[in-house]
Amino acid sequence: MKIIIDAMGGDNAPRVPVAAAAKAARELDVNIVLIGREDLIRSELQKHKYPSGRIETVNADEVITNHEEPAKAVKRKKNSSLVKAAVMLKNGGGDAMLSMGNTGAVLAAGTLIVGRIRGIIRPALAVILPSKKGPKLLLDAGANANCKPENLVQFAVMGSIYMKNIIGSDNPTVGLMSIGEEEGKGNNLTKAAYLLLKTAPINFIGNIEGRDVMDGTADVMTCDGFVGNVVLKTIEGMGSFVGGALKNIFSDGILAMLGALCVKGGLNRFKSEIDYREYGGAPLLGVRGTVIKGHGSSDERAAFSAIVQAKKAVETNLVEKIKNSLPGTDAPDFKEGIE
Amino acid sequence: MKIIIDAMGGDNAPRVPVAAAAKAARELDVNIVLIGREDLIRSELQKHKYPSGRIETVNADEVITNHEEPAKAVKRKKNSSLVKAAVMLKNGGGDAMLSMGNTGAVLAAGTLIVGRIRGIIRPALAVILPSKKGPKLLLDAGANANCKPENLVQFAVMGSIYMKNIIGSDNPTVGLMSIGEEEGKGNNLTKAAYLLLKTAPINFIGNIEGRDVMDGTADVMTCDGFVGNVVLKTIEGMGSFVGGALKNIFSDGILAMLGALCVKGGLNRFKSEIDYREYGGAPLLGVRGTVIKGHGSSDERAAFSAIVQAKKAVETNLVEKIKNSLPGTDAPDFKEGIE
Repeated sequence: MKIIIDAMGGDNAPRVPVAAAAKAARELDVNIVLIGREDLIRSELQKHKYPSGRIETVNADEVITNHEEPAKAVKRKKNSSLVKAAVMLKNGGGDAMLSMGNTGAVLAAGTLIVGRIRGIIRPALAVILPSKKGPKLLLDAGANANCKPENLVQFAVMGSIYMKNIIGSDNPTVGLMSIGEEEGKGNNLTKAAYLLLKTAPINFIGNIEGRDVMDGTADVMTCDGFVGNVVLKTIEGMGSFVGGALKNIFSDGILAMLGALCVKGGLNRFKSEIDYREYGGAPLLGVRGTVIKGHGSSDERAAFSAIVQAKKAVETNLVEKIKNSLPGTDAPDFKEGIE
Repeated sequence: MKIIIDAMGGDNAPRVPVAAAAKAARELDVNIVLIGREDLIRSELQKHKYPSGRIETVNADEVITNHEEPAKAVKRKKNSSLVKAAVMLKNGGGDAMLSMGNTGAVLAAGTLIVGRIRGIIRPALAVILPSKKGPKLLLDAGANANCKPENLVQFAVMGSIYMKNIIGSDNPTVGLMSIGEEEGKGNNLTKAAYLLLKTAPINFIGNIEGRDVMDGTADVMTCDGFVGNVVLKTIEGMGSFVGGALKNIFSDGILAMLGALCVKGGLNRFKSEIDYREYGGAPLLGVRGTVIKGHGSSDERAAFSAIVQAKKAVETNLVEKIKNSLPGTDAPDFKEGIE
């Protein structure tokens, strides 16, 4: 198996992607292609030990930064590490790709270069969130600001396949993000989606609300990319708010610092439970290849988790399974129904 | 000043509404009307001392529960405490009303009985949220699941008036809840609203994201009621998630309990900072009277804060100010523009 890594993507590139690649070459049964400025990559590679045959490098002179308009950058920068990675994936030069770069550009590269699976109206960015009941999947987390009911159904189907194959949920439950539990609650989009979800080949449990995200009520949470992105960032902001407050509380005098020592173990366990680095990156579901968007601030551990995740997606034939989930003669037609 | 209280609304009715009314009668310069089952109210009133002329009771045999379909219940239950409170407010029998009952029913009673301010397309439920920079206002928090760009502008204007008059923000900033800071980011609704907000008579600072809610980036956050409700409940759920985790951490053995003692003061200060009970209830803005929806689980302190809030709204002529904010000859026309 060969995993293509955009070595120039992320806040700590190429240091972090290269370090994670070396670790993967040592510990996993995978080959890695590192794409980017070869001089920089090679100088980073020298810092690590790894089986030399496991890692190859491909030069790419350009880099797409976080400040560029994603679709434009992907169309113009043919020699960027991201575009070259996506082209290589498309052409069968690897089995999966990982980038920690510009989120919009990764989405654009995935959709425009790797390409949508036939029948998938819109690919979705899925994020794994911690909850009281373990990791759950929220999608779309921002790829599609405007959605139709059919999109939400496809997200639910793809998310279910992901949770079953990658996280190991048995018969994953699907909740529709809304503002009330009853079927009649929600906006025009969710009310129409509800009707379609009821007959979709998934384990639909009805509407869920904001509280249910961290409660872990559903294994898969389907929503439009606007709502999903707002939820994701609200949680991040709330985490930073509470984290900052706790930091202040625990550093307010000798007694408080003693208190911090007393619960250090417990706090660290909790931090690791909710640590995004454990769960890998955000998969772009619905494209013709395994595309993982790693967190921009990934460290070596997070980037390595994303490689593990990519490997698992390839091993479980995730893309094939999504392809096969699409409506055939005896499956409901997504295009039908209400909009 | 006379404040009408639905004595049967909320998880702890009539105990909590009556206790808060007695406290208000003692400590604030207000008269209170308690509406509900008079036998129950009187038996609760006997437990409190208060200036006897300050509190009157009005009998209402029916109660609208949390499980009823709001609009239907308001239309049918003419003898419910909530409907009688709203009718009394509408007829000038009081200056403000407070209910801790069924949220949807309070919205319906406010909109259908008290009535919209002429020119306000849709009233909005506004919630006060804690943040790194103090209390901020998010609206709509659930009254309108489907919105038009003009709604978001009116929410912004009403929210600005609220923050200035009730919270004391000077020239309150307004942020449009979206999924990217740049003007072009968002969904169809927010992109169109952005254009209108730029020329509205408010201190518009552009798009904000989920992270900005707890960061306190904007004094007023405008969004449709679906998004606002999801944000609100996601924050509540995250609070419960973190609170539950901390409880576990601090009760995990003798050492951890010692740690809890060491930071007890700091934790309590933080809890009180983010305590919704300090900020009163959620005002329904855009109706022809001061209508406050108190939290269903309000205790005496929370209910009392909501009375203080209602009093302040009356004293500062909040409703009049919202009326006067509406477009006249020299103000932009909300109906014009993009949808």
